[in-house]
Amino acid sequence: MPLVTIEVADTVPVEKRHAYGEAVNAGLVEGLGMDAEDRFQVIHPLPADHIIADPHYLGGDRRDVVYIRILMVKMYDAATKVKAFDAIARNLEAEGVRPDDVFIAITENTLDDWYPGARGVR
Amino acid sequence: MPLVTIEVADTVPVEKRHAYGEAVNAGLVEGLGMDAEDRFQVIHPLPADHIIADPHYLGGDRRDVVYIRILMVKMYDAATKVKAFDAIARNLEAEGVRPDDVFIAITENTLDDWYPGARGVR
Amino acid sequence: MPLVTIEVADTVPVEKRHAYGEAVNAGLVEGLGMDAEDRFQVIHPLPADHIIADPHYLGGDRRDVVYIRILMVKMYDAATKVKAFDAIARNLEAEGVRPDDVFIAITENTLDDWYPGARGVR
Repeated sequence: MPLVTIEVADTVPVEKRHAYGEAVNAGLVEGLGMDAEDRFQVIHPLPADHIIADPHYLGGDRRDVVYIRILMVKMYDAATKVKAFDAIARNLEAEGVRPDDVFIAITENTLDDWYPGARGVR
Repeated sequence: MPLVTIEVADTVPVEKRHAYGEAVNAGLVEGLGMDAEDRFQVIHPLPADHIIADPHYLGGDRRDVVYIRILMVKMYDAATKVKAFDAIARNLEAEGVRPDDVFIAITENTLDDWYPGARGVR
Repeated sequence: MPLVTIEVADTVPVEKRHAYGEAVNAGLVEGLGMDAEDRFQVIHPLPADHIIADPHYLGGDRRDVVYIRILMVKMYDAATKVKAFDAIARNLEAEGVRPDDVFIAITENTLDDWYPGARGVR
């Protein structure tokens, strides 16, 4: 039950934003072994100058960063997370996002923290 | 000091969005035993197609999901969280949200992580 | 690698929103000893009535709250967080935000949870 948040410049066309969502989902399927149907995402289009990232800190050359936040149950080791990061970045690159512009942050919780609808089974 | 985030389609009228906020607050009061005045909420209206949820994964029949994120201090057990989930869903149903369309995710932190204004006492 | 989210009323002028971002960044530099270049921020302008805060709960006199969320690696003690809170509030006051209207919440994760671009080094 990852819940994915994508913060992207509103200058990115709507169909492209949706393609980003699909790219992230496919990356989680590949990297975490997640079910493809386990897709829960919110896309926030924002003014481009409201998405701020230092261009070079920690390395790389950032220009038009897409922020991806993943809230998920604590159950994956560091190597698995790296697989997911790499798969997401690769998939986003196919949609025109430079790999330096992919910024991902994970937050973890537990299974008790989810309510997936009244008839959803955690 | 829960901080609640509600992500809702911008096709939902403004007064309804506020009713959702009140429904969530009352659910936390009932389920967690929270003070009614402990209300800190941000409502994000978004294009309906930017709020993505698989219609059937984990069960249920999702159509117009409302995402509710709750950031709160780690101090409640699983049964208490279930009480809050159920109360929130029941209150939202009274406002016209189908219980299958309520999706809640909790993230926990500690008391040290809050600054409720300069004169606020944690 | 803190990732900062600022939720602010869209009645606040754009240049002021950016000043808020700089104020928060300078506060983290002063309070946490963070590098000034370690700046990753997203500003969400929202309708003023979508940013809800009880006016007096826990103390203070809230009127036009600015929510600041900080996602960062778990590595700072409570006293250090207080230093950051105080520095952020002081810097925001210089930009016209009443200290009672500053509301900050921290969420913590680990170094494994970050992907700062393809060539970024964690």
